[in-house]
Amino acid sequence: MTVEPRGGDDVLTDAGLLSPVRAGTPVEAAVSDLAWLQAMLDAESALARAQARLGTLPKSAATAIAAAAYTDRMDLRALALAARETANPVVGLVQALTRVVAEHDPAAAEYVHRGSTSQDVFDTGMMLVSARALRIVRADLARVERALAALAAEHRDTPMPGRTLALHAVPTTFGLKAAGWRQLVRDADARLAALLEDGLPVSLGGAAGTLAGYLEYARLDGAPPHGDPGEYLDELVAAFAEETGLARPVLPWHALRTPVADLAAALAFTAGALGKMAVDVQSLARTEVAEVAEPGPAGRGASSAMPHKRNPVLSTLIRSAALQVPVLAAGLTQCLVAEDERSAGVWHAEWQLLRECLRLVGGAAHTAVELAEGLDVHPARMRANLDLTGSQIVSERLAAVLTPRLGKPAARRLLTEAAASGRDLSLSPELAAHFTPAELTALCDPTTYPGAAAPLVNRALDGAP
Amino acid sequence: MTVEPRGGDDVLTDAGLLSPVRAGTPVEAAVSDLAWLQAMLDAESALARAQARLGTLPKSAATAIAAAAYTDRMDLRALALAARETANPVVGLVQALTRVVAEHDPAAAEYVHRGSTSQDVFDTGMMLVSARALRIVRADLARVERALAALAAEHRDTPMPGRTLALHAVPTTFGLKAAGWRQLVRDADARLAALLEDGLPVSLGGAAGTLAGYLEYARLDGAPPHGDPGEYLDELVAAFAEETGLARPVLPWHALRTPVADLAAALAFTAGALGKMAVDVQSLARTEVAEVAEPGPAGRGASSAMPHKRNPVLSTLIRSAALQVPVLAAGLTQCLVAEDERSAGVWHAEWQLLRECLRLVGGAAHTAVELAEGLDVHPARMRANLDLTGSQIVSERLAAVLTPRLGKPAARRLLTEAAASGRDLSLSPELAAHFTPAELTALCDPTTYPGAAAPLVNRALDGAP
Amino acid sequence: MTVEPRGGDDVLTDAGLLSPVRAGTPVEAAVSDLAWLQAMLDAESALARAQARLGTLPKSAATAIAAAAYTDRMDLRALALAARETANPVVGLVQALTRVVAEHDPAAAEYVHRGSTSQDVFDTGMMLVSARALRIVRADLARVERALAALAAEHRDTPMPGRTLALHAVPTTFGLKAAGWRQLVRDADARLAALLEDGLPVSLGGAAGTLAGYLEYARLDGAPPHGDPGEYLDELVAAFAEETGLARPVLPWHALRTPVADLAAALAFTAGALGKMAVDVQSLARTEVAEVAEPGPAGRGASSAMPHKRNPVLSTLIRSAALQVPVLAAGLTQCLVAEDERSAGVWHAEWQLLRECLRLVGGAAHTAVELAEGLDVHPARMRANLDLTGSQIVSERLAAVLTPRLGKPAARRLLTEAAASGRDLSLSPELAAHFTPAELTALCDPTTYPGAAAPLVNRALDGAP
Amino acid sequence: MTVEPRGGDDVLTDAGLLSPVRAGTPVEAAVSDLAWLQAMLDAESALARAQARLGTLPKSAATAIAAAAYTDRMDLRALALAARETANPVVGLVQALTRVVAEHDPAAAEYVHRGSTSQDVFDTGMMLVSARALRIVRADLARVERALAALAAEHRDTPMPGRTLALHAVPTTFGLKAAGWRQLVRDADARLAALLEDGLPVSLGGAAGTLAGYLEYARLDGAPPHGDPGEYLDELVAAFAEETGLARPVLPWHALRTPVADLAAALAFTAGALGKMAVDVQSLARTEVAEVAEPGPAGRGASSAMPHKRNPVLSTLIRSAALQVPVLAAGLTQCLVAEDERSAGVWHAEWQLLRECLRLVGGAAHTAVELAEGLDVHPARMRANLDLTGSQIVSERLAAVLTPRLGKPAARRLLTEAAASGRDLSLSPELAAHFTPAELTALCDPTTYPGAAAPLVNRALDGAP
Repeated sequence: MTVEPRGGDDVLTDAGLLSPVRAGTPVEAAVSDLAWLQAMLDAESALARAQARLGTLPKSAATAIAAAAYTDRMDLRALALAARETANPVVGLVQALTRVVAEHDPAAAEYVHRGSTSQDVFDTGMMLVSARALRIVRADLARVERALAALAAEHRDTPMPGRTLALHAVPTTFGLKAAGWRQLVRDADARLAALLEDGLPVSLGGAAGTLAGYLEYARLDGAPPHGDPGEYLDELVAAFAEETGLARPVLPWHALRTPVADLAAALAFTAGALGKMAVDVQSLARTEVAEVAEPGPAGRGASSAMPHKRNPVLSTLIRSAALQVPVLAAGLTQCLVAEDERSAGVWHAEWQLLRECLRLVGGAAHTAVELAEGLDVHPARMRANLDLTGSQIVSERLAAVLTPRLGKPAARRLLTEAAASGRDLSLSPELAAHFTPAELTALCDPTTYPGAAAPLVNRALDGAP
Repeated sequence: MTVEPRGGDDVLTDAGLLSPVRAGTPVEAAVSDLAWLQAMLDAESALARAQARLGTLPKSAATAIAAAAYTDRMDLRALALAARETANPVVGLVQALTRVVAEHDPAAAEYVHRGSTSQDVFDTGMMLVSARALRIVRADLARVERALAALAAEHRDTPMPGRTLALHAVPTTFGLKAAGWRQLVRDADARLAALLEDGLPVSLGGAAGTLAGYLEYARLDGAPPHGDPGEYLDELVAAFAEETGLARPVLPWHALRTPVADLAAALAFTAGALGKMAVDVQSLARTEVAEVAEPGPAGRGASSAMPHKRNPVLSTLIRSAALQVPVLAAGLTQCLVAEDERSAGVWHAEWQLLRECLRLVGGAAHTAVELAEGLDVHPARMRANLDLTGSQIVSERLAAVLTPRLGKPAARRLLTEAAASGRDLSLSPELAAHFTPAELTALCDPTTYPGAAAPLVNRALDGAP
Repeated sequence: MTVEPRGGDDVLTDAGLLSPVRAGTPVEAAVSDLAWLQAMLDAESALARAQARLGTLPKSAATAIAAAAYTDRMDLRALALAARETANPVVGLVQALTRVVAEHDPAAAEYVHRGSTSQDVFDTGMMLVSARALRIVRADLARVERALAALAAEHRDTPMPGRTLALHAVPTTFGLKAAGWRQLVRDADARLAALLEDGLPVSLGGAAGTLAGYLEYARLDGAPPHGDPGEYLDELVAAFAEETGLARPVLPWHALRTPVADLAAALAFTAGALGKMAVDVQSLARTEVAEVAEPGPAGRGASSAMPHKRNPVLSTLIRSAALQVPVLAAGLTQCLVAEDERSAGVWHAEWQLLRECLRLVGGAAHTAVELAEGLDVHPARMRANLDLTGSQIVSERLAAVLTPRLGKPAARRLLTEAAASGRDLSLSPELAAHFTPAELTALCDPTTYPGAAAPLVNRALDGAP
Repeated sequence: MTVEPRGGDDVLTDAGLLSPVRAGTPVEAAVSDLAWLQAMLDAESALARAQARLGTLPKSAATAIAAAAYTDRMDLRALALAARETANPVVGLVQALTRVVAEHDPAAAEYVHRGSTSQDVFDTGMMLVSARALRIVRADLARVERALAALAAEHRDTPMPGRTLALHAVPTTFGLKAAGWRQLVRDADARLAALLEDGLPVSLGGAAGTLAGYLEYARLDGAPPHGDPGEYLDELVAAFAEETGLARPVLPWHALRTPVADLAAALAFTAGALGKMAVDVQSLARTEVAEVAEPGPAGRGASSAMPHKRNPVLSTLIRSAALQVPVLAAGLTQCLVAEDERSAGVWHAEWQLLRECLRLVGGAAHTAVELAEGLDVHPARMRANLDLTGSQIVSERLAAVLTPRLGKPAARRLLTEAAASGRDLSLSPELAAHFTPAELTALCDPTTYPGAAAPLVNRALDGAP
């Protein structure tokens, strides 16, 4: 750790000090201000190339714009500050890009942002950033899923207490638990995959969603002639989508925020899915339970006060993200209610919320890789814990066997009383009256009451419903 | 309005006084306590029938259980109060159902809730209620969509001001606006349809998700013999799904809450989609704008103080729902983070939140039918409003035409100055220097600057992307 | 449990089936539709009496209005349905009240709702309902606080493991834990008390917040003459506040929603405060921990599948409320952003959210009384659990004692290694080199490392900071 | 705008690109990672000084620690990355600080973080950051309040349409509207002031809230002797509070999160209060209404597409914050539900949420200064708009005057019909039958129906209820 003094710009450093779940993970760079700026420049560049493909913009201009559209030619902070004057950073970005282009090709500078509007560039950039971040998340989810599949297979028959409302219920297996975590991860991944498939469209609407500016410039610039605006519209949307790799929207979506609401839902789901695994790990890692432990390189999980501790820090970080994303996502969902052709504030509320959702989910997924790949599982402790309740963990089975003999109410009453006595059920005089000793012993063995845990794991791993 | 005195149970009446958006709409009955209770009884009945189909429960017992499983044999309030003792209403429901069955067929009573657990019955009931409510919502959305399609077609070429950040931007058409509302409604409906297709599964896990109780009773009751638990598992899930009309889950989902999170997301989306239409209607209905008015039967929209008012009450009600559902849905999404095999509180937090989401969305959709089918559109006022800015609404077009002649910066500067002068741009001396009078007049006509509004409407109505 | 068939109005029954935390608790009646309707009638009645006190309304009319203003003369459902036409229930309520008054005193009927507006009546009613509900909540919080104070005093010196990040940290006492729960309850109560003191004002603004209608009718009706509108304003507000027992607002608050935002904050706080106790009880009640158990009358906590279980249902119910209220409250806080003199939808979104917050908090507080008054504490188990880590729970103390001898890094390293060995620290050869056996034994006794737990409890119970 | 290339660390730059509401405002620096790091160092330094005052730490060590506790000796990014290993940045910070101290005074290095725990340092730092940010916010709110008071006074009698449910209701004055905005700002400020008064306490609990480490080291280090732990506890808390300027808590609050919940509530309130003003400004700035305009230096509010626009960007930015903070704050409120002596994830979820709330509120307040101080008010347009409804805006007054003559129902019916005719009420034949022409003309003058607007403004500005 160096002790170099640092300059005045440090106030702009977001090192992740308050969000360790994502500090240093790949998503951080992918959604940074700089990445966002580059994505908007990518949008400008792609737009120019798309227009050039349609013959309404000189190819040389598109080339010049593409060559200039890099963040190293921009002053990020100046653009951010300028955004206060116009409520979005694109007005300043267009001026800066125009200036850079003009340095090398003054004629091309005329074609920057041709016919466009701030929101087209911002939202297309936002979709590019989202797509890039989702791909990072999916790569990490794939690793989590593989690791959990391995755990599920390995521990398909490892018995452990099933717990409901904080208490031992009936036995389950650790494999079934891991298969459940994996299923949630698969569900999350399916939602992200669907978005990447065709849920992240280019934005192309012009000043108020009619593409009038694009059409007007095309008419002025325009060879070859386009018969009707619909034809040009179709071609421009298709070309822009191709240049960016994004989807084609049904309608301009300046004020129809389906893509953002879908991102919010899928990201909140992913955070919650990972959060489920995290709270389960914590539940099982408690000092008294000790059925799993987090992977522990030296120093991991250290406490500033207590030398003995090896805190479950990975699940802690994941849980911290899972607690934040759903409320952030609610903020995004509310932005569906955006008035007019472009809202005065609702659109603007989305940006930071979406970035934070992407960043937290990306951090949580990355952290989950380490957790899932390195989780220490303690079958012996699970086995020991199964004995903690004195066979009460199989009281359901005893009730089932007794029901045909005594009737349901009497069977239940008998078990309730036997349980209340505090004695091990295998030694219960109340029960001894109804079973042979061998029968009672066998019935009280928790390892022979797994239910369908094993076939459930098999089915989940096969992936067939 | 009668003045009959009412009894002491009135404290239980939820007449919708605080939620007029749904008072008296069809969803209200579909998600009521009574409907929920019936759905849980339907789940018990279906479970018995499914077990009978597999030969592990006498057909006569299934018949007796099905015959008894009606709410009119239950005391709803007593069940609700009893739920405080067990944290869910199913324990009491099973006791009550058992008693009713026993009155007619004591032997059958033994088979009520055979091998089951509270959460299987509650969650299956919750999915049944949700499916019924979603079908109601979809029927209303279909009507909204048709009405909006008609508006979009009728007003495909009706010019009106496009508005961004509260100000006139460039012209658009009312048809394009209506097509946008419709697109959001279609997006919402697609999400609900996907859920109804295979997103609402039966719950079948037994005490802790292993189906051990079902298997144990099947073994005890069991003819014909089932080779392995996996086979019985598959058959029981399939039979239960068939009996209820719900989907088959990959795994028991007591603590894997994908279906609830998906419902939350789809319902929040639907509320937001309708909310967008509502705020737009309000924006256009303002006294100064007056481009649309809500349908107005006698008394509708009356004020208690001001005889002249005809308040936009339908959009007000819809917006009130759109403001509530996203935060309720966030509460549901957070419930993904549920510890262990069944959470002590997280599961329980879902119930009322989900019902309220269903109810508000159902009410909003029903209200939106009336709004969309009866909306008064005032093209003449739209046309008049296009003139309010003295041709500034087409400043983008003027800039486009001037740009090839003057260069972008000079063109922009010229327009900014002309606009700042306050004069109608068609009379601007600054502009007159660059156009013939006829040219300037033509360019300043806002009705000839619709962009691609018409083809966009055509494409949206065709449904092709 | 009876099996009486029930009629078609059952669809309106909200028996609390989905919200057992509040089913049958006192708050339920206090915030019911009927209670809300009565509160609005109380507002109408108080307004008439206030106007009569100022001489601008005949005393006989005020008497007649007061005599008629009871819900048993109204059709609650009809009013709720009528509210769909006007977006609020007051328009219909005024018509109904006028009709009832007219039956006995036609002249008085003219004076119903004199100069008023729907929002004045609704919001004043809402404040009355809130005040009544808060008083119920506070009475329950007082009992919770007393019970927790008794637990804190009784167990001031009962040692137990302190737990951080799911693991044993250093010892604490159960008294300090109970004192902490109590402190949160006191904090919650202080916030509710402040609201009841002067945070719940009458609403008196007239059609758009200027009181013009009140003034105009006073002028017309007006004896004795009032010099200026300000004087009449002051007197009317004061009289209305006195008649209702509510506070006097600085300004009409139709669109200045401080009281509602404050209610939201205080209720969310209260839910969270109780939720903290609930999750701690669950943490301590886990099968493996077993340091506390919930009070258990017969049948409490029963499972439908497992006869042995005694689920922690009270903490489960409380936690279910604590998970819901903060998001509902966020919905209310957002309603601060209400446009114009009365919002078209934002106001309307508050009603059901606020009622639900009141109801959940009231239910949680009532449930917490039973939990706090009956909690079973198991000091012997706490003592046994202190030994689970082999003295690691006092590693901090060992580090402290070694630090002056070895320096901090070496001391820490030594302890970390000793802990990693898995041996009981009191038997650690690494440590034995630095202590006499008696010294090490004494240092490893967790019961002699309570820190300031006892004086902290004393200070908390004294109530002095 | 420069085009300097920038280095690889740019990924850490948070320039505010996605959050222009706070880009470059003073709060940004006050809550940056660097400021937070410094605040934690301030906490370490203050703790050492406090211990030195009590004689349990050498004064020279406290001096050395204080001299070293500056961020320029730390590597912020390295600390953030290290926080992933321990789930909080304090473990690494203590190591780094120890190293820096040791460079100059190895003996003093032993006393860094003496007896302490990560959460004490982090939370005390968090309170310091919050206090500093709140002071910045309050300074801006004071300016907003003054500007609004001036507007209220200046326009006390400026008539304008009062609007409810999007429609003209009765006249109000712009002064009353400004006084309402100011009142909300005052309410917000009062909540922030109360927090600064005694709501932001030091955190002092040690490893698990018993202060055992502090006491143990004091015993070891300890001259002068302290009779009982309570006495030392009191003195240490008092000294730490004095050294930091923060309040003294009743109990250690590691898991009793009152201060954070209170911050969340006050910040959400402030955001909502400013948001109310923002949406009102937008409502009044709409092209068709044009009663106010935002202050407009050159370039402010420019559009990338439309040269004529002067967008209401300040209110847009403020509204964007008001939409985000309540959901972020709900996330914080939920963190009250934190298990055990320190939660594994709930605590960690607070940090970024709180910083973002502080930052958005600080940005919104700063932006509101410019809005309130520079708002253009157009009384002539307000006056003209009053005439838009053809005297319907005074229909309430006409109804009042007619009621004593015709009875309420007949009066209301007459007015409803007259309004429905579409004719100006002053020219209505229906009404002409009941008034002299002069009387009708006078009654139809909207400027003479201000109600109590003026005295309400007077009272609000006097600050007396």
